Amino acid sequence: MSSIKSFFSVFLPNKEYKFLPLIQSIGERAVLAAELFSQLISETDQSKREDLYAKVKALETECDIIEVQVFDELNGNFVAPFDREDIHQLCNMLDDVVDLINGSAKKTMLYQPQSMPNKAMHMAEIILEGAKAIRIALNEFKTMSKSPENVLEQCKKLHDLEHEGDDVYDNFVKELFETESNPIELVKIKEIMGEMERATDKANSVGKTLQTIIVKYA
Amino acid sequence: MSSIKSFFSVFLPNKEYKFLPLIQSIGERAVLAAELFSQLISETDQSKREDLYAKVKALETECDIIEVQVFDELNGNFVAPFDREDIHQLCNMLDDVVDLINGSAKKTMLYQPQSMPNKAMHMAEIILEGAKAIRIALNEFKTMSKSPENVLEQCKKLHDLEHEGDDVYDNFVKELFETESNPIELVKIKEIMGEMERATDKANSVGKTLQTIIVKYA
Amino acid sequence: MSSIKSFFSVFLPNKEYKFLPLIQSIGERAVLAAELFSQLISETDQSKREDLYAKVKALETECDIIEVQVFDELNGNFVAPFDREDIHQLCNMLDDVVDLINGSAKKTMLYQPQSMPNKAMHMAEIILEGAKAIRIALNEFKTMSKSPENVLEQCKKLHDLEHEGDDVYDNFVKELFETESNPIELVKIKEIMGEMERATDKANSVGKTLQTIIVKYA
Repeated sequence: MSSIKSFFSVFLPNKEYKFLPLIQSIGERAVLAAELFSQLISETDQSKREDLYAKVKALETECDIIEVQVFDELNGNFVAPFDREDIHQLCNMLDDVVDLINGSAKKTMLYQPQSMPNKAMHMAEIILEGAKAIRIALNEFKTMSKSPENVLEQCKKLHDLEHEGDDVYDNFVKELFETESNPIELVKIKEIMGEMERATDKANSVGKTLQTIIVKYA
Repeated sequence: MSSIKSFFSVFLPNKEYKFLPLIQSIGERAVLAAELFSQLISETDQSKREDLYAKVKALETECDIIEVQVFDELNGNFVAPFDREDIHQLCNMLDDVVDLINGSAKKTMLYQPQSMPNKAMHMAEIILEGAKAIRIALNEFKTMSKSPENVLEQCKKLHDLEHEGDDVYDNFVKELFETESNPIELVKIKEIMGEMERATDKANSVGKTLQTIIVKYA
Repeated sequence: MSSIKSFFSVFLPNKEYKFLPLIQSIGERAVLAAELFSQLISETDQSKREDLYAKVKALETECDIIEVQVFDELNGNFVAPFDREDIHQLCNMLDDVVDLINGSAKKTMLYQPQSMPNKAMHMAEIILEGAKAIRIALNEFKTMSKSPENVLEQCKKLHDLEHEGDDVYDNFVKELFETESNPIELVKIKEIMGEMERATDKANSVGKTLQTIIVKYA
């Protein structure tokens, strides 16, 4: 990794990037949204579900606004050593994660499942852990030069969480097929869990995008 | 945006790109396919559904052929100020949109739902609006130097349409869970609506790709 | 294609890339996994299904390890004429294909469908053909300079296989809606077939990535 270190160290320590706090603030909101969603998924009172969803939705709307700010910031500004399009790509991926957390919250609120199984709580925790890993990685972004290992450790974590999410989803659906006699309730819960599983996939895509950026500038 | 203007203006006004009319003709076909699909979705006569699907399929096949022509055109030809791979990426995304409109039409024709709910018509309109936004953006492609705002306006529209598509889909499925007592009919209609929702997602991906191109060459 | 030839020929014949045998070994494992999955899908004995899945899973784990090796190999090493990030992207896509074959095997093993329909066998064959096309393309990677046509032929094949996979899936689901009276069994088989269909999609994405690499360096 010495080549990464030597390359980045020329540029990064002496320069602040305006896009970075913006992107980090999307990471913060991903964690907040995942925390609210964890509460929502264990909530059975519909009006409380609606309140929690409204808060998630507000975060998602803020992220859309921040994404436009990142776009404006990248446009025409030098962001060396990175290529602007890579930062834009990363920002798109982050936004997708927040969209999918929002989607999971919305589906839970709208479809009103009688109760969510314990495995849904497990999945919500995986999403929250993923959001936290993304937040750490983004906070280490500027020091990738000195310690790319820290970012790579979070990428590894996101990869492992995606595999764990796959396992939880598949075992959950297996149980659902065995125990849920109401097919409509089955489809409903499967739809919510599927959206959650996609959120863990997309969190891993953020990790892959970070790895590609590291490889590109290595 | 002045930097975009100054950069593009050096290259674009004096040069024709052979790939551009090809890509624009995919945009045209996306609109035609979306129009035919709108008719199909409100059609209950199976033989008319089959006729309409055959027309959508023919457009999709034409787009596959055009995509190969774009590939051949890009290969070895200078397409400055763009990198060839960005145009190829954009073309791939466009083709995906047409594929998903075709997929929505095929599923409707094959699965033969008794009737499609009003919300399906709404979704078909969102897809059509998205295809039109893509067509406008592609027609503005050459003048992105003078007015990137026009392309960005369509990107914003594609983003909003995707969110609208999400809402229509989620509320539609919510209603379906409440009103459709036949689980097999429920899964059938949900499958068709899901493909339509993916078409609005992919249309937004075209917008994101256009934004990344703008950022890259800003 | 003469420009591709002249460009690549400067670099490739005299140089070995350490990343290439690694990536090729992922291609080999994709074929092995697809072969095991073909056996699994026609197997009705649950303990044999579990044995076969364990073998697929072992291949998937090996691919994850190889992917890390590719990452380490790319980092800081010159891999001209390619940009490191393109090889990383290709490797990510390959890994996704193996993940989806593994996912298809896992779902079949876990959900324990009473029997899989003939169309599932057809789909497994499409996946296997796709894995073989990927293997050929990767083995031709180094000689893309002399004969890009060979790689492009495999890309075309992957595209056609994806379309064939779509058709098989849609016609299969159509039949399922007509003949399967147990909605839970319907959802179960549809879930497995959906994962298989995604594997053919992702195999086509490998083809598109290869085409983008060809276009970029043409």
